[in-house]
Amino acid sequence: MSNTLINIVVAGPRGKMGSETLRLIEQTEHFNLVGCLDRKNEQMKVKDIEGLPNLDAPIYTDINQCFTELRPDVFIDFTTYEAGKKNMVTALEFGIRPVIGSSGFTEDDEKELKTLTREKSLGAIIAPNFALGAVLMMKFAQMAAKHFPDVEIIEQHHDGKLDAPSGTGIKTAEMIAAVRTEKKQGNPDEKELIEGARGADIQGIKLHSIRLPGLIAHQEVLFGAEGQTLKIRHDSLNRTSFMSGVKLAVETVMHLDDLVYGLENIIE
Amino acid sequence: MSNTLINIVVAGPRGKMGSETLRLIEQTEHFNLVGCLDRKNEQMKVKDIEGLPNLDAPIYTDINQCFTELRPDVFIDFTTYEAGKKNMVTALEFGIRPVIGSSGFTEDDEKELKTLTREKSLGAIIAPNFALGAVLMMKFAQMAAKHFPDVEIIEQHHDGKLDAPSGTGIKTAEMIAAVRTEKKQGNPDEKELIEGARGADIQGIKLHSIRLPGLIAHQEVLFGAEGQTLKIRHDSLNRTSFMSGVKLAVETVMHLDDLVYGLENIIE
Amino acid sequence: MSNTLINIVVAGPRGKMGSETLRLIEQTEHFNLVGCLDRKNEQMKVKDIEGLPNLDAPIYTDINQCFTELRPDVFIDFTTYEAGKKNMVTALEFGIRPVIGSSGFTEDDEKELKTLTREKSLGAIIAPNFALGAVLMMKFAQMAAKHFPDVEIIEQHHDGKLDAPSGTGIKTAEMIAAVRTEKKQGNPDEKELIEGARGADIQGIKLHSIRLPGLIAHQEVLFGAEGQTLKIRHDSLNRTSFMSGVKLAVETVMHLDDLVYGLENIIE
Amino acid sequence: MSNTLINIVVAGPRGKMGSETLRLIEQTEHFNLVGCLDRKNEQMKVKDIEGLPNLDAPIYTDINQCFTELRPDVFIDFTTYEAGKKNMVTALEFGIRPVIGSSGFTEDDEKELKTLTREKSLGAIIAPNFALGAVLMMKFAQMAAKHFPDVEIIEQHHDGKLDAPSGTGIKTAEMIAAVRTEKKQGNPDEKELIEGARGADIQGIKLHSIRLPGLIAHQEVLFGAEGQTLKIRHDSLNRTSFMSGVKLAVETVMHLDDLVYGLENIIE
Repeated sequence: MSNTLINIVVAGPRGKMGSETLRLIEQTEHFNLVGCLDRKNEQMKVKDIEGLPNLDAPIYTDINQCFTELRPDVFIDFTTYEAGKKNMVTALEFGIRPVIGSSGFTEDDEKELKTLTREKSLGAIIAPNFALGAVLMMKFAQMAAKHFPDVEIIEQHHDGKLDAPSGTGIKTAEMIAAVRTEKKQGNPDEKELIEGARGADIQGIKLHSIRLPGLIAHQEVLFGAEGQTLKIRHDSLNRTSFMSGVKLAVETVMHLDDLVYGLENIIE
Repeated sequence: MSNTLINIVVAGPRGKMGSETLRLIEQTEHFNLVGCLDRKNEQMKVKDIEGLPNLDAPIYTDINQCFTELRPDVFIDFTTYEAGKKNMVTALEFGIRPVIGSSGFTEDDEKELKTLTREKSLGAIIAPNFALGAVLMMKFAQMAAKHFPDVEIIEQHHDGKLDAPSGTGIKTAEMIAAVRTEKKQGNPDEKELIEGARGADIQGIKLHSIRLPGLIAHQEVLFGAEGQTLKIRHDSLNRTSFMSGVKLAVETVMHLDDLVYGLENIIE
Repeated sequence: MSNTLINIVVAGPRGKMGSETLRLIEQTEHFNLVGCLDRKNEQMKVKDIEGLPNLDAPIYTDINQCFTELRPDVFIDFTTYEAGKKNMVTALEFGIRPVIGSSGFTEDDEKELKTLTREKSLGAIIAPNFALGAVLMMKFAQMAAKHFPDVEIIEQHHDGKLDAPSGTGIKTAEMIAAVRTEKKQGNPDEKELIEGARGADIQGIKLHSIRLPGLIAHQEVLFGAEGQTLKIRHDSLNRTSFMSGVKLAVETVMHLDDLVYGLENIIE
Repeated sequence: MSNTLINIVVAGPRGKMGSETLRLIEQTEHFNLVGCLDRKNEQMKVKDIEGLPNLDAPIYTDINQCFTELRPDVFIDFTTYEAGKKNMVTALEFGIRPVIGSSGFTEDDEKELKTLTREKSLGAIIAPNFALGAVLMMKFAQMAAKHFPDVEIIEQHHDGKLDAPSGTGIKTAEMIAAVRTEKKQGNPDEKELIEGARGADIQGIKLHSIRLPGLIAHQEVLFGAEGQTLKIRHDSLNRTSFMSGVKLAVETVMHLDDLVYGLENIIE
């Protein structure tokens, strides 16, 4: 990892991911916050905002003025898809490498932005999920599925969660389905004595959703083959778990020369 | 545990449980096989039957002759409900303590047989399940449920299994339901994006059935409460796991003076 | 559980356990905080202290005045061994049932206080550990050890923890050792290729201490027997996990007529 | 995977791995056993040897005669390092692709054999471990360690095992150590109250060895980082678990044009 100082501007500093990112920058020796982009608080400093770290970096509401005056190496955006996309294009025009943390980018967006980064020979990263452990779990699951096609997913969350299965559970199943020949698992004559026992089905992969107080966000991907099982489990306790992913993205974007979509593609 | 020698007759010696029981007796210093009861093989010895241990004990087809000649301390029966019940009554009449390994006994049977054992002041055990680890798991689950009413069950079996959920899974849920106030778990507005994600439901308790090659017979009972979770997991690899339960039953029946139904009731 | 209103005084309201207890009382319909005992803040109310819940209950520094004026049903003490013991005696003299959350009580203390509670026919509970899940884990481990004498303990904590093994790990091993015949586990000719591989040893029971960032406080007790394993695992995320134990103690002490030491003894 | 028929000769057909390999070939439609190489049993057929599958393939004791008459596509060798190395060279000279299942090959051996395979443009695989699940676990562990440098290894085996830690445990630690900056884990002032609690140490990575009846061969690699943990666990029940690795090696060696050492290097 390079230890050259990286100057950073953060958009969305008051949001949950944004404020954690400020703390990450504060704690990382070779990261330097030169400014923030916000919808309000023009001419204030980060340390003036309650709940943010004690940093002197100025806040801008105008992106052009911000980039003109600060010339950062990296621009981190935790706003929305619409704002993030627009800000990304502006950053690239200024020769600044963007790290964008929104979901919603279409394949057309991706193509268009990839072309732009290649024209500029500038690294850029868009990642809907910065939880490095979860990204590794999904990547390993996909690799394992090539050799162990029989697999089930058990995701476990706190009992306040509305949707089942979880987004990560569904995405993991889709990533696995993309690399294995479709198959029906279990006994072909299998019988559910009580409906739902065998879980949800995504292209033949079973997903089971556990909801209990005391749980936070956990997932097991369990592979079975003749005489052996392989389990990959991720336990996430809080939002700080996303920060190792943000750190990796900032360090990696400095060495890229076009757009990478998804953290899984910058993990060797 | 008493180390006085216990003389034993086994009915059903060629079945899976019966033949394992013969091996158990062979390996246990204070257990002594004095004979077997079989539907055939009269006048043969155990060691004459292929696949059975090298023991001299004679085989009988007539239970009265067998008990009259051998006068064992304990009679172990792994035949069927019908034969087991009949044999049990005969054993009690001979003053022999029965350990019966069949399911199917009704509450009326239990009452009737309990009365008989009390008249004779003789210990007797009927147990549909000798897997001591599984019995402990169910007992602990029931105890925990009094304090942690939020619970889900994840049972995992080989992919040849036909039924889901497993019998042990259903029994565990019923044992838990018997001691907790009925409640609906999870978010009241919970939504299954894909049907079956939240599993089967037994009185508000969710059961999830995993089926994969490489699995044998496993179950997790997961309790959740504010700030903590408690998990009880049993892994069963093969039929030998039943033998610690048979051993415990034989040793315990010597000290009982009436019928106990279910191994969970002889575990302190 | 009784739903009659229970009036409570809490000593040590500003400590970690004390302040959590105030929140527990606030959230429990049939619990009512009538006052607090503190070393300072005389004549203030709970809601006047920063960080405490918005409750009107008055604060006293003198225990006699407090009990005389408030006449609570239950007195909860999260101070120290010395203060707790003294306060407990005073409470009993006032006919108030004490729940004391300190460690350090000797067997002599226990005997003396038991005599006192019997004279008064008053319930009392002293518990060094209110983590109900951890107490259940230890109790189940002790029960299982009678049947499965081969066992190892794997405790996992955050990497800031100084001592290994953890107190709970040591206590679990001691509780197991108390009920099983001492035995040397593993291969008698076992060889440690690297020192420490087989863990710490308490009376033949192996303990393994894992220390990693991202962990909080976890413990597995793993039993092995021919053909099966049984695992009991407790995961504790934060101090709120103690509150179900405090709640149980308060509800139970109302129905006791002498001293019980240790939460494990009020769990059926 | 190609479904063209692959003709195979197996050396060491009476050993544990060899005989399982014969069963694998028997059950795999596009695999065909054309003969075996053995130290004895010249002119016999596989089906004449007790315990081997009912296959007509002839047994040879002379490798040159065997290869001259049978001209297989692939030669599988489960003999010893010395015999395996010699047989491998002979196979390559005959234009046959070798899959060698012995450990002991040095870096010099590897270089020399790599040169030979390149001259011949022939695929070859040497693998000391064919347990695909274990190989995946180690590969994933190494990948994860680049991002999560804090890690401990918990390996669990039956209580008859002599050595601790296990070979797989040591190899996993070495593979991790090779990619992470050396670090001391845990609290710098950490204190072992009982010696061995913190396990064995390999370059700062802690290993813990559990030994219990009922266990077979299991390993967990547990990574911890701020706010999250990632666990990779492999459970191996029996030798059949090696066969998916042998199958993969045979299928892969057909598409290689030089030597690959270690199954981890043919897994994408």
